[in-house]
Amino acid sequence: MLVVQKYGGTSVGNPERIKNVARRVARTRDEGHDVIVVVSAMSGETDKLVKLAHEISETPDEREMDTLISTGERVTIALLAMALKDMGYKAQSFTGRQMGIITDTAHTKARIEKITAERVHDALKEGKIAVVAGFQGITAGGDVTTLGRGGSDTTAVAIAAALKADVCEIYTDVDGVYTADPNVVPNARKLEKISYEEMLELASLGAKVLQTRSVEFAAKYNVPVHVRSSFNDNPGTMVTKEDREMEAVVVSGVTCNKNEAKITLVGVPDKPGVASRLFGAVANDNIVVDMIIQNVGEGGLTDLSFTVPKTDAKKALDLTQKINAADIGAKDVSLQENIAKLSVVGVGMRSHSGVAAKMFDALANEGINIMMISTSEIKISCVIDAKYSELAVRVLHDVFELGVEQVAA
Amino acid sequence: MLVVQKYGGTSVGNPERIKNVARRVARTRDEGHDVIVVVSAMSGETDKLVKLAHEISETPDEREMDTLISTGERVTIALLAMALKDMGYKAQSFTGRQMGIITDTAHTKARIEKITAERVHDALKEGKIAVVAGFQGITAGGDVTTLGRGGSDTTAVAIAAALKADVCEIYTDVDGVYTADPNVVPNARKLEKISYEEMLELASLGAKVLQTRSVEFAAKYNVPVHVRSSFNDNPGTMVTKEDREMEAVVVSGVTCNKNEAKITLVGVPDKPGVASRLFGAVANDNIVVDMIIQNVGEGGLTDLSFTVPKTDAKKALDLTQKINAADIGAKDVSLQENIAKLSVVGVGMRSHSGVAAKMFDALANEGINIMMISTSEIKISCVIDAKYSELAVRVLHDVFELGVEQVAA
Repeated sequence: MLVVQKYGGTSVGNPERIKNVARRVARTRDEGHDVIVVVSAMSGETDKLVKLAHEISETPDEREMDTLISTGERVTIALLAMALKDMGYKAQSFTGRQMGIITDTAHTKARIEKITAERVHDALKEGKIAVVAGFQGITAGGDVTTLGRGGSDTTAVAIAAALKADVCEIYTDVDGVYTADPNVVPNARKLEKISYEEMLELASLGAKVLQTRSVEFAAKYNVPVHVRSSFNDNPGTMVTKEDREMEAVVVSGVTCNKNEAKITLVGVPDKPGVASRLFGAVANDNIVVDMIIQNVGEGGLTDLSFTVPKTDAKKALDLTQKINAADIGAKDVSLQENIAKLSVVGVGMRSHSGVAAKMFDALANEGINIMMISTSEIKISCVIDAKYSELAVRVLHDVFELGVEQVAA
Repeated sequence: MLVVQKYGGTSVGNPERIKNVARRVARTRDEGHDVIVVVSAMSGETDKLVKLAHEISETPDEREMDTLISTGERVTIALLAMALKDMGYKAQSFTGRQMGIITDTAHTKARIEKITAERVHDALKEGKIAVVAGFQGITAGGDVTTLGRGGSDTTAVAIAAALKADVCEIYTDVDGVYTADPNVVPNARKLEKISYEEMLELASLGAKVLQTRSVEFAAKYNVPVHVRSSFNDNPGTMVTKEDREMEAVVVSGVTCNKNEAKITLVGVPDKPGVASRLFGAVANDNIVVDMIIQNVGEGGLTDLSFTVPKTDAKKALDLTQKINAADIGAKDVSLQENIAKLSVVGVGMRSHSGVAAKMFDALANEGINIMMISTSEIKISCVIDAKYSELAVRVLHDVFELGVEQVAA
């Protein structure tokens, strides 16, 4: 069996922890498997390098930024390979280049185009454990690139896809994917398995377990991903293709994202092209808009609300005010930052109706006002006042009986 | 003009200093020159990485060690290139690989085999300042190597040779090469120029200004090297081919090296092959022997002394005792660590006699006993008791009138 394992920054945060990871990797090797290990930079190292760059320049050049921050993972691969060799195992480190991870030229957020993996085949054939630097690649022209924050997950999944690994194990500091945040919901339950689609919604909704792009990659190439803890031996959560058993479960999880802010234009004169001009300008400024709601109000005036990441809120507000003054003529533009986006996710929604009604009812019963609603095939999201977010998560977790093991119909 | 500049770890020790180096580099560019800058790791960084490795393994794998410690210079090139771009200059960083520095496979002490330099030509043609990682290279097979401590000097000189640069400027924390250590000899004088051969003797004798191998490289390819300070604008010392003016100066400098220890075998039975067996074994243990002296004493017994680096002294003593017991049968083996090797260096010695006599006289006048003597064409070295070393350096500096500007005959 070929096993790809990925260990994050916390798992390799100091020499003792690196030795601990080496013992885990060695155990997998002892079980007779071929092993490729992908590692992140030691926790805190990437931030330290970014800070250095900002002491040099307010807007550091992105090509140089990649040369700089890719060093963190190179340190870890060398140390882990040393640790494995010290234990008597054959091991060899691979930088992004040595692994043949070819990306486009979009520095600091490059996308993997292919993995040539020439040298790693020989290493595996010689019985070596391959220790690969996550987060980094190389352009066809030979420049170093990085894949953006959390890119090591993507590296691991992409390697598993390219080498047709039997499983890609993502080791993290939690036991797996839960029905809700266990810090908020005491009886939150670890899911044994979850579909790529559900994981995608959860990842992009802020469940912080797996990077969104790595899940897209896994879904595209059908790579079974096992999310588990590097601090114990508990089985984690398998992320796989949707199966019949999953469809029987209407809702798999409840999440809450407090990282968005809402901008509202009140009293927008109803003339064509308003939305297009506004959101065109916002997109040009590289601000990602999540939800948009427009309602016709009295006297032919409409109200328009949209959400953006909190970090971009001020920038988006300034821009919206400028465009409003020049072009739109709404009565008022306001920003609300104390909001939360509450979501329920489940592939079973495709075949079950009434989920939305049940959600709205439950919130209404608690007196929680819904400001915005958006839905997809397998997800319903509501924007609510942030102060109710923990309460709302607990209520929905109960209403959809997520604390109870759900058996296939 | 094509100028290669090299800045050491102290010169790039923090963001402020990196910006300072950027201003110096920019000034050279403003003067209309093409510039290639070679940098070391920020001071302390390489040591920190080595320490990490030793926390993982007592004998870290050397291939992985190179992957690990080569990251230090990658950090510096990225930061310096950022700083230059931030100032509005075109600049691009080059790792050892991107510079095409091809080495043999002797990890942690690799030798440069060739410099392909494909990409740097284009960069220079586009008006870019090339910022190159010192100390590192890549094998033909694509593995990362390092050149050993001080390897950045060698990188700079090798690049200057390969690209036929007009000058290779080595920026350091001293103003140039002095007739003696200014901390010991108050009237020590900075040399305006010095020959490669003299510099080689001085470098290997411990004058810490330039790495020995870089001087060999410079001599072989006739690269003019300018040693100067990165903290002021004083002209430094030019290291060049020997010329007639230099030959007129009998002695150029006095140095003192306290990093060796002496091992003595007293009463060695005079039978053939003793030296060969002993030094064969020492070499097999990778201990570098510097001076060897053998004298026939009374009754057909000889005394044999040799010096080794202090760091290898205990190992060499153990080995010598073992071999003596098994094979040689000398009466006693002893180690003396409080010694100093005092040397006078000058290409003028080739054509002037009497230097040795003058040196021995001067030491005798001060009551300083000479334990060992070794000579080359342009150097005389004496081993003396370490406690006299500062006194001896001052005396010789006076006797050879090194404090006075010497005019060509």
